[in-house]
Formats: sequence, C-alpha cells, structure tokens
Amino acid sequence: MTDTAGNPSAHVPGMPVVAVIGDGQLARMMQTEAIELGQSIRLLAGASGSSAAQVSADIFIGDYTNLDDLRRVAQGADVVTFDHEHVPTEHLLALIAEGINVQPRPEALVNAQDKLVMRKRLREIGAPVPPFAAIESVEDAGAFFDAVGGAVCIKARRGGYDGHGVWFPTDKDELSALVEKLLAAGTPLMAEKKVALVRELSAMVARSPSGEIVAWPVVESVQTNGICTEAVAPAPGISEALAQRSVELAQTIAKELEVTGVMAVELFEFADSAGQPDIAVNELAMRPHNTGHWTQDGCVTSQFEQHLRAVLDYPLGSVALNSQVTVMANVLGGQSDPELPMAKRMAGVWTRFPGAKIHLYGKTHRPGRKIGHINLSGDDVDMTRREAQLCADYLVHARWADGHVG
Amino acid sequence: MTDTAGNPSAHVPGMPVVAVIGDGQLARMMQTEAIELGQSIRLLAGASGSSAAQVSADIFIGDYTNLDDLRRVAQGADVVTFDHEHVPTEHLLALIAEGINVQPRPEALVNAQDKLVMRKRLREIGAPVPPFAAIESVEDAGAFFDAVGGAVCIKARRGGYDGHGVWFPTDKDELSALVEKLLAAGTPLMAEKKVALVRELSAMVARSPSGEIVAWPVVESVQTNGICTEAVAPAPGISEALAQRSVELAQTIAKELEVTGVMAVELFEFADSAGQPDIAVNELAMRPHNTGHWTQDGCVTSQFEQHLRAVLDYPLGSVALNSQVTVMANVLGGQSDPELPMAKRMAGVWTRFPGAKIHLYGKTHRPGRKIGHINLSGDDVDMTRREAQLCADYLVHARWADGHVG
Ligand SMILES: Nc1ncnc2c1ncn2[C@@H]1O[C@H](COP(=O)(O)OP(=O)(O)OP(=O)(O)O)[C@@H](O)[C@H]1O
Ligand SMILES: Nc1ncnc2c1ncn2[C@@H]1O[C@H](COP(=O)(O)OP(=O)(O)OP(=O)(O)O)[C@@H](O)[C@H]1O
Repeated sequence: MTDTAGNPSAHVPGMPVVAVIGDGQLARMMQTEAIELGQSIRLLAGASGSSAAQVSADIFIGDYTNLDDLRRVAQGADVVTFDHEHVPTEHLLALIAEGINVQPRPEALVNAQDKLVMRKRLREIGAPVPPFAAIESVEDAGAFFDAVGGAVCIKARRGGYDGHGVWFPTDKDELSALVEKLLAAGTPLMAEKKVALVRELSAMVARSPSGEIVAWPVVESVQTNGICTEAVAPAPGISEALAQRSVELAQTIAKELEVTGVMAVELFEFADSAGQPDIAVNELAMRPHNTGHWTQDGCVTSQFEQHLRAVLDYPLGSVALNSQVTVMANVLGGQSDPELPMAKRMAGVWTRFPGAKIHLYGKTHRPGRKIGHINLSGDDVDMTRREAQLCADYLVHARWADGHVG
Repeated sequence: MTDTAGNPSAHVPGMPVVAVIGDGQLARMMQTEAIELGQSIRLLAGASGSSAAQVSADIFIGDYTNLDDLRRVAQGADVVTFDHEHVPTEHLLALIAEGINVQPRPEALVNAQDKLVMRKRLREIGAPVPPFAAIESVEDAGAFFDAVGGAVCIKARRGGYDGHGVWFPTDKDELSALVEKLLAAGTPLMAEKKVALVRELSAMVARSPSGEIVAWPVVESVQTNGICTEAVAPAPGISEALAQRSVELAQTIAKELEVTGVMAVELFEFADSAGQPDIAVNELAMRPHNTGHWTQDGCVTSQFEQHLRAVLDYPLGSVALNSQVTVMANVLGGQSDPELPMAKRMAGVWTRFPGAKIHLYGKTHRPGRKIGHINLSGDDVDMTRREAQLCADYLVHARWADGHVG
C-alpha cells in the first residue's frame, strides 16, 4: 500500500488543498479538473489502486467511518468534500468543531443521506414530492398501501444506490413479507407513492458558501434497472415553463437547505390530473452526479470544476453550451468481459465516431459495474442518442448493436 | 523524494501505460487527458515537486540524459514519449534496439532538436524556409550577412527555447563579435535571413504510426520577446487559400518526416514580392505545443488527448470547434509576485469573466516563467483577445490593465 498522505510534493505552495473523502470516479474526475486549476486533490481512499487513488499523489488509505482517519486527511486542507454521502454526520460535526472547513455542511448533507429526512424537509419548504410515509411496522405499510390505492414503493432510508434499496411490491402480501423482513434486518424504511412516470429529469446547480448559485440546463435521465444509463442535455422537448420550474426548484432547494458544492435534483416527470406535465423530487445528491457527466464535454464549466470552485468559495463558472445537444451514455460491465481488450474497443469506437469522448474510471470488469461513460455532442437529438448508445454498447460487448462491421 | 516508479497501483490492469520523459506543464496536461481515458502516465521527472510529478502516482526521479534512467522508466511501458525534445538521439536508438516503442522516432525528432538539420530536411522535401546557412566561422557569418543584405538572424542549432538562442545583430561588427563568442563557447550555429514578419502562425497536426493525420485549424501566435504570449484560433482574417496551404504544409512535413504524435509547425507570414501573403517554416515542435493550448477548451479533442491517441496508435479525434473563436493568453510571472494570493486572483478573474478557463501548472513565481494560461471563447475576435489578455494580465499583476475596479 502506498500511503503518501500529506505529501507536500503533490501541491504547489500557495494553492488551496481540497481533501476528498472517497476514491471513486467522481473523485477521479475532480482530480482532472483540480490539476488544470493548478491544484491536486488529497484523498481519503479505501485502497491504493482505486479509481481516484491511481491518479493522485497525496493519498491516505483509510476508512471514512473512522474519525481519526478523517482527521488525518483533513489536517491542513483548505476544505473537506466528498465523492459520496456516507460519512457519518457526527464525525463531520466533530471535524467542524475542531475548525475544519467541511463543504457541504452536515446539516445540508443529511438530506442526501436519508430519504425520509429529505422528503420531510422538502415538504416544509414547499417543494413537490410524491406522497410518502415513515414505515415502522407492517401496519404502517398496509395503511399507506390503502391510502395510495396500491401504487407503492418501499425505500431504505439510507445507503441505497443504483436502485439497490428500492422495491415495488405488487400486492399487500408481498408488501407485508418484504417490510417484515427488512424491519427485522434493522433497515429503516419509508414508503412512497409509485408515480406513473413520463420520464426522469435532473436539475443540477452549484452553490457556493457565499450564496452564488449557477444552474445547468435540465437534462433527461434514463434509468435501466435502477441505474442511470443515459443523460440527454438539454432535456428534449421540455417546455420552457417546465424547464424553468425545474431549475427554480433546484435553486430554491439549494438555497433553503444551504447546500454548497454541486447538487443534482433527480425529478420525476408525470402527467397531472389535467394531463399537463408536472414534476416531483425523487432524490438529492450533494456532489457531482452521473446525470452531470455530460458537462465535461458539453459546456464551458464541468460539474467537477464547478464543485471545486463552489466548495472553495470561488466565483462559479459559465455553463454556456458547446453544442446543441450532448448525450452521456454509461458504460456498464456486461455479463462477461469480451476477449478484445478495452484499448482495442476504444479504437473501434473512435474509428467509427471520431468525436466520441470516452471517459474511463480505471476500474476492472464486473457485471453491471459503472466503468466509464461516453459523451457525444451533435445537432440532432435522436441521432446523437443512438450513436452514444452504440458507442457505450460497443465498449461493453465489442460488437456494434446495429450490425455495423468494421 | 518520492520515487514510486513502476507503481502498479497507478494503472488499472489492461490499459496501456504511457511513459513521458519530462515533468513540465505539457506532461501535466497529458496526465489530465490520460486520466479521462482510463489511464495514468508514468513519469521520468527531474524532481518530485515538479509540475507533472505533483499530479502523478507513478514517478521515477531521474535524468533524461542518463540511459539507465530512461531504461527504467521505459520498462514495461507501452510507449515512451516526451514533453521536450532534449533526449539524446543515441539513447533513443539504444532504447529502440532493446525493443522499446519510442514515439516520435529519433529520426523524426532530430528535426525538432537541430534547427539546421530541420532546415536542410525541409528544403529537401520542398517546404518553404527562409534562406539559411551553416555558420562555422566569422567568415561564414560575414558572407551570409552580405548575401541577405544585412537582414540576419543567428541561431543556436540546439537547445533554444522561448527566444533564448536567437540573436539579431544589427551590423557586421556586432555579428562578428557575437559569432566569435558563441563559437568559442562551443555553440553550433546557423544563420537565417531575418524575415519581415507580418505575423506568426502555427499549423498543428497529429499523426499516428499507422499514418492517420488530423489537422487543427491554423492559429495566429503572438511572440513577445521571443516567448509565445497569445494564440488565436482560428487565425483571424486568414484567406482560405493560405490556411489550406499552411495545413497542407504541416501534413506534408508530418508525412515526409514520419512524425508521430502532435507536431506544431511554427510559421512566418510575410508579404511576397507581389505583396501577397506567403509563409515559411520557422520551427517544428514534436509534442503538444503552447500554440495548441486553446484546444483544451476550444475544440472536441485537445492536443494532449490527441498526442496520447497518436503515440498509442489509436484512431485520432475530431477537431470540430466548440465556438467561433478561442483565444489562449499565457500567464507569465511578472517582475514581482503580487501580495494578493493566486487563489484570490483567480477569484477576481472569474468574478468578471465567468467563462475564462484558467489552467495553472503548479509552478511558483519567477519573472518571465510560464506559470499558466487562460483560454477564453467567444464570437468576436477582438473582444475575446482583449478579454483573454486582461485575464492573463490580472493573474500576474492583481489589477485590471483597463482600469476596471471590482
Ligand atoms: N416513487 C416512485 N415511483 C416510480 N418510480 C420510482 C419511484 N421511486 C423510485 N423509482 C424508480 O427507481 C429508480 C431508483 O430509485 P432511487 O433514485 O430512489 O434509488 P437510488 O438507489 O437512491 O438511486 P440513485 O443511485 O439514482 O440515487 C428511480 O430512478 C425510478 O426509476
Ligand atoms: N528568421 C527570422 N526572422 C524574423 N524573426 C525571427 C526569425 N527567426 C526567429 N524570429 C523571431 O524570434 C522568435 C523566436 O525564434 P525561434 O522560434 O527560432 O526561437 P525558439 O527559442 O526556438 O522559440 P520557441 O520557444 O518558440 O520554439 C520567433 O518567434 C520570431 O518572432
């Protein structure tokens, strides 16, 4: 294990040091932007070969649930931020009490950690959320089932990701069995009305401690089996009014919750009783988010640069678009890894699509694992979506889904 | 000193390892692109705190003129490439004899190392160069002076940069004294006719070992005291015909010299005897180049990604532009470093110009030292130039050259 924490050679004197808790692709992509800003991130990583640790020279190998490990990486850093939401609130409060600058603050972050806390808070500030309830017994679940006419969704309050921790029981028996099992296992639960989705949207903003807020255009996001597989920027065919409402909603949440850094507001789009498009909040993420990866190539300031600027309380960057449409398609490990090495698959993609921007996370193959994404820009939404999907699919399967040969 | 060479944790299994000889900003900016491609560069660095070493996890501290140091960093790498031209040819030939993949090849690279070799070679292939001569004595210099009517420029054949190694003696006495002194010091020399410059241009291309060539639009570059201070892409007001000739010239040179990776062809634009714009080659650089920094923000594939793709023999990337004009302005250390810390100066720039892309190299202040650059995109050439200059100037002096306050 290489433990190079506090490596002064990784930072030029006078530039801010950002400590990032977490070693995944989000931290990795923060590092690329940090480098261009003349900095270099310091990492609390779980392992030296992890996605972000591979590309950093100031690494502390440790455990983000251990306060001493957090203290060590935080010491001397200008700010501590995150590539995930799982650091215990009490540790963050302890760091703050010791004078450490933590962004976002735990009071904001808890809304991205606990789905029930978030919904209660959003309801308080008047933000639209689907009907929901705390579930502490099978009876609670049954009552909610009846109240929403059986369209129910059970969620673990904490620790879910990529659809893990979300269940859609189809009848009361299934619901009861599920809830009984989860409660017995000690999983804190909530229930939410199952929304008749038209599609999912994501409204992303960045907010600095000084209160400046900048919003990217709303994007459409596509989930497959609970995992984000595609984001299309801007959201195709969205009305000016709905786009504006979505952005204003995200701005309001950022302001009311005093979020700092980048925040994604995952939204459900559904038809209201009059058949008009309406929105409700599904989830908050207080960090760069999968639905914002398109910004790396699609606009002037990426979410990773913006997050660093925001947590360092720099003025925020322009989000002017580089092209009419940018599509992000996730690269998820397939059932097995093709024999053709990844480098050759990349060559295959570029031979056919020289404008495809390939972003890989330095991760090895595992079925369903996010190992990278493709950004592709163009003028035509449908064609760009199709092409981005083809590229992502080729990186996984080493063959063109449309039968193209070459 | 952290010596982490051969650190397997810095690379995910299966992805190519690119060894870069040199630790300056060019290697640093290759690293940001390598990261996004799922790789990480291995570095032969002079010091652990150097620009590229700060941001890399696989570093060998050594000397690029020492064959054993070169061997150690090359071992197990898929390709060896460079962020400067100063590696001795005999060492590169030795590495190749040992089976190492070196790109570009020394046979090409020598044309970027020796100004006289380059000019002879270019003349052979019919590329336009100003009249020149080898200078081995004061008499040679005097004869050349007479032949070009006194418009003479003396150049050290090797090792020059940022205008060091270029002299413009104004009369024969000055010339004789200069040449005598330089020859006595053992500096191999050449003379070139001093061209009545209209401006300087740069034509950049990338070529892969397979022979694919991609060219960026020709840019105008501005030199101040021999140092590149600005690049404007595409070159303002250039005729379609001259732009095409410039690009074709760079393509021809890349092909004839079997260049691999990125090459900049620095050009003089001057008026021919009929008063029409004409071009001649000044210099070749076989690596990413200062006049190509605009590509990081101004087009789909940056010169750093393209260089990695080219030396790895991947298909090359699209060079479609992100906006009508992109201006790169260099940030050069001023006479003294202002009291206002760099982070605050960055904030000042962004407050006024939220679209300014700041790229810093992790270097400390030294008068005249290149410590970073600004890229700014826009629609209006003159305004964008003015604004980019203002930003670069503010980063150096912590005050707005146009008197703006705030
Ligand atoms: N109330 C609901 N009605 C309909 N579909 C829902 C509802 N809640 C969740 N879903 C579906 O399940 C997916 C995953 O849910 P959710 O976002 O809560 O899970 P997660 O694991 O926290 O996801 P992520 O990793 O995207 O944050 C959603 O993107 C949506 O497609
Ligand atoms: N023959 C010439 N006629 C007129 N000006 C010249 C001539 N040669 C060089 N110059 C001027 O001097 C500058 C530096 O020259 P040159 O590019 O040869 O030096 P260098 O130190 O190798 O530069 P670089 O770092 O840009 O490669 C040129 O950009 C140009 O402005």
